[in-house]
Amino acid sequence: MFEAAEVGSSIAKSEFRKQVPLLRHELLVLQQELLELAEFPVIVVFAGVDGAGKGQTVNLLNEWMDPRWIVTRAYNTPSDEERERPEYWRFWRDLPPKGRIGLFLSSWYSRPVLDRVYGNIELPQFVDCLDRIVAFENTLTEEGAVLLKFWMHLSKPAQKRRLKALEKDPLTSWRVTDRDWKHWELYDEFVETAERAIMRTSTGRAPWTIVEGEDLNYRSLMVGTMIRDAIRKRIDDARRTQETLLQPAPDKPDASAAEVAQKTAGDGEASVKTIQSSPRITILSNLDMSRSINKGDYRQKLMENQARLSKLCREAFKKKVTTILVFEGPDAAGKGGGIRRITSPLDARNYQVLPFAAPTDEESAHHYLWRFWRHLSRAGRLTIYDRSWYGRVLVERVEGFASEETWRRAYAEINDFEDQLIESDIVLAKFWVHITKEEQLNRFKLREKVPYKRWKLTEEDWRNREKWGQYEMAVHDMVQHTSTINAPWTLVEGNDKRYARIKVIETVCERLEYKLSEK
Amino acid sequence: MFEAAEVGSSIAKSEFRKQVPLLRHELLVLQQELLELAEFPVIVVFAGVDGAGKGQTVNLLNEWMDPRWIVTRAYNTPSDEERERPEYWRFWRDLPPKGRIGLFLSSWYSRPVLDRVYGNIELPQFVDCLDRIVAFENTLTEEGAVLLKFWMHLSKPAQKRRLKALEKDPLTSWRVTDRDWKHWELYDEFVETAERAIMRTSTGRAPWTIVEGEDLNYRSLMVGTMIRDAIRKRIDDARRTQETLLQPAPDKPDASAAEVAQKTAGDGEASVKTIQSSPRITILSNLDMSRSINKGDYRQKLMENQARLSKLCREAFKKKVTTILVFEGPDAAGKGGGIRRITSPLDARNYQVLPFAAPTDEESAHHYLWRFWRHLSRAGRLTIYDRSWYGRVLVERVEGFASEETWRRAYAEINDFEDQLIESDIVLAKFWVHITKEEQLNRFKLREKVPYKRWKLTEEDWRNREKWGQYEMAVHDMVQHTSTINAPWTLVEGNDKRYARIKVIETVCERLEYKLSEK
Repeated sequence: MFEAAEVGSSIAKSEFRKQVPLLRHELLVLQQELLELAEFPVIVVFAGVDGAGKGQTVNLLNEWMDPRWIVTRAYNTPSDEERERPEYWRFWRDLPPKGRIGLFLSSWYSRPVLDRVYGNIELPQFVDCLDRIVAFENTLTEEGAVLLKFWMHLSKPAQKRRLKALEKDPLTSWRVTDRDWKHWELYDEFVETAERAIMRTSTGRAPWTIVEGEDLNYRSLMVGTMIRDAIRKRIDDARRTQETLLQPAPDKPDASAAEVAQKTAGDGEASVKTIQSSPRITILSNLDMSRSINKGDYRQKLMENQARLSKLCREAFKKKVTTILVFEGPDAAGKGGGIRRITSPLDARNYQVLPFAAPTDEESAHHYLWRFWRHLSRAGRLTIYDRSWYGRVLVERVEGFASEETWRRAYAEINDFEDQLIESDIVLAKFWVHITKEEQLNRFKLREKVPYKRWKLTEEDWRNREKWGQYEMAVHDMVQHTSTINAPWTLVEGNDKRYARIKVIETVCERLEYKLSEK
Repeated sequence: MFEAAEVGSSIAKSEFRKQVPLLRHELLVLQQELLELAEFPVIVVFAGVDGAGKGQTVNLLNEWMDPRWIVTRAYNTPSDEERERPEYWRFWRDLPPKGRIGLFLSSWYSRPVLDRVYGNIELPQFVDCLDRIVAFENTLTEEGAVLLKFWMHLSKPAQKRRLKALEKDPLTSWRVTDRDWKHWELYDEFVETAERAIMRTSTGRAPWTIVEGEDLNYRSLMVGTMIRDAIRKRIDDARRTQETLLQPAPDKPDASAAEVAQKTAGDGEASVKTIQSSPRITILSNLDMSRSINKGDYRQKLMENQARLSKLCREAFKKKVTTILVFEGPDAAGKGGGIRRITSPLDARNYQVLPFAAPTDEESAHHYLWRFWRHLSRAGRLTIYDRSWYGRVLVERVEGFASEETWRRAYAEINDFEDQLIESDIVLAKFWVHITKEEQLNRFKLREKVPYKRWKLTEEDWRNREKWGQYEMAVHDMVQHTSTINAPWTLVEGNDKRYARIKVIETVCERLEYKLSEK
């Protein structure tokens, strides 16, 4: 695999000097266009042999371009705040927003590759790590990110020469550490591991480029040129798409621009409608919505379970077990009431309720999962997501804010995200609190009468009722795709508020008890 | 001071039950109004004797109100990420945005008070800490935050009774720790320290309320009622201000709403104009703008200083010395070029250039200093602020975005902020890169000709030139108020770009050398 990168590629200094000013100029112009368009981020990953000049090349790129719109990151030992969250939290929090460039040295590849080379993990575990990487990178590229990966290569003798040369020069000797020489001794293991990593993670949208690392001029020009071409191409594509949307469709010369735009945006919705026309039984129709509980039993059970939960949460805090609860459901289903019954016995220092409505502008400038990653708490806390990452496959699907292609792939993205939560020992419970359409109407009418609840009721709530059937189907599909053994959905029959609250709090207690018994 | 809080205040259960539903309803309505108005945050600080029910009361408030719009925080040992920044970073990052409520247990008062009680700091140091608190709280209230502080008190025998009672009940015994008993033994020292803290930090806008803590009903109702009244009053004030702006001014019945609004917004500008009419010599007029350096010397000095800086920054990284550079100056003064000469010899992993233009919507929802606090780096890095917190006393002042009262108090806020940076051993260098009005014109004309620089030039840049005199005066005042021994401004004669770049990089090297020699 690496033979082609051991042929002694180089570029003469004179040639380099001739090419750089133009390349630099083009990169600066592109950076500006990228920023103005603000439609996608550019993520560049550097990996490879020590001494192959990853750092040098990244520094040069920062010099060539405007460093204000570049984020450069390298990762060492995680901080304690990072250790208390899933491994990828540190990468998510550094991802560049749309319009900017992120250069990642020692990225998500470092830990798995080094663990494998040092023999800390077995091959199957290593393959699992690579699968996680593929899923992560897919998540980014599917949402539009330009993702480039450069593997800087040196042959074993070349690496030795390079390390020796760096050591000899007093200006660079600090760069060579014992660790570098240790790695050189593991060269063969390293190359074998690298080969497997590259094979597994070189995908159509996130391919690896192997770069011969011996010559600074060669590798820098090569990397710079590829970054330029990739950004150029994507910007041109984006511009073409915009133009198409603004021009009449070729096959319908009389169609107005607005119609065309609507047609494109509404593709997802159209296919939903097709499904709707053949009514089907959803998972929700199987719920026994008449379930209820009498007032006396409710009080008793609520008290018992709140005491139980309070104790469990204290234990979880001590044992650093984090809990995440997700609440979804139609308007007025009683999510808020259910949430309050959970939080009231708890210590306010250790829980947080996060409501999710429209994203802020900083959130809109990132992948849609970013806003959920950023709020992951430190270890031992309980966080309640009042609406969540499921918005993409519920409201965004039904209202046509996300294309069919987008919400369909969201299932896999969500499963992968939740996998990471569970892997880092987080207790995850997801509740769909359901009510019937009739019950919702009753509650809406009631809300109109209570002054401090009236604000909760908007025009939109009434409009959403019209799409009841579509929402039911979206829930059906959601449960089908995302209810897994480790992260099952709990469907809650919510027509009787008391019944729903008890079911929710009991489920939370059970899940916590189970996890704590393992500790 | 605490006698009045040892009189055995209590509220009968029946009375409590009668009052709570109404209070709760009012709090919920207010929370909603607060959120809709989104003009100011509410910050509530709880402190006092252990066992006086701070936590319980905060939990009850979370139960009474909608916890989704409340942030509750308590602070223990700082995380490593917190330890690597100034002490107040952790508080700044948790401040609620406008429209929301923050409840702070063991807040910025805890560390100083406990340090003093335990005898870890002497009285003068303690007073310094209190001054820092006053400055911090002023910063918040001046920008509109409602700030309430409750000191929960118990007499010494009452505290003993309380701790005993908590210990006896199996449901609450976990709450009493050895630390609590240790604190009880230090009761007298604690009360003495508390008295001093309360006296020093009870200000008009952030007064302390001492609450007798023995009776849960009494203290909860008292706190809840005071929070309600404070929010109510501020919301009414805000509404009245809005109405005044929308109605004709009483003394000028024919003035249009727009005129009135302009008048109010432009108060600051008006007074600036008065000053302008009496032209004065500014600190900038004393600069020798003809200073220059020849190309040969420039190359030599640049190379030398870049090598020097590279070495210094590596040492700073090892010694965990953080560097912050601030760049301000007229458009086209060459800030960007100066910045690139600094970053090019450095390792891109360890520096970050942050450009500041318009705030994002998340930033607008906070105090104007929040966006700078949030970007403070971990220890050992170099961060360059391309424009900065000085925007308030420069562009915001001149363009009338900030009222005179607002930008005038910003000097003190900025000095306090920078004090905190310096106290936590950060090297802070501030550069005003200056050019003459004529030189700016030359550069604008040049920019118009270079395609990839043309984007830099906007209509606004041309407009800003018209206010040259006002900007010069703003700079003059800024330097006068914020150039301190520990955080001096460096005025850079920038008509000759080469001269400016050398002056900047040399200054950075000197500052770093000085700091590192102390380590």
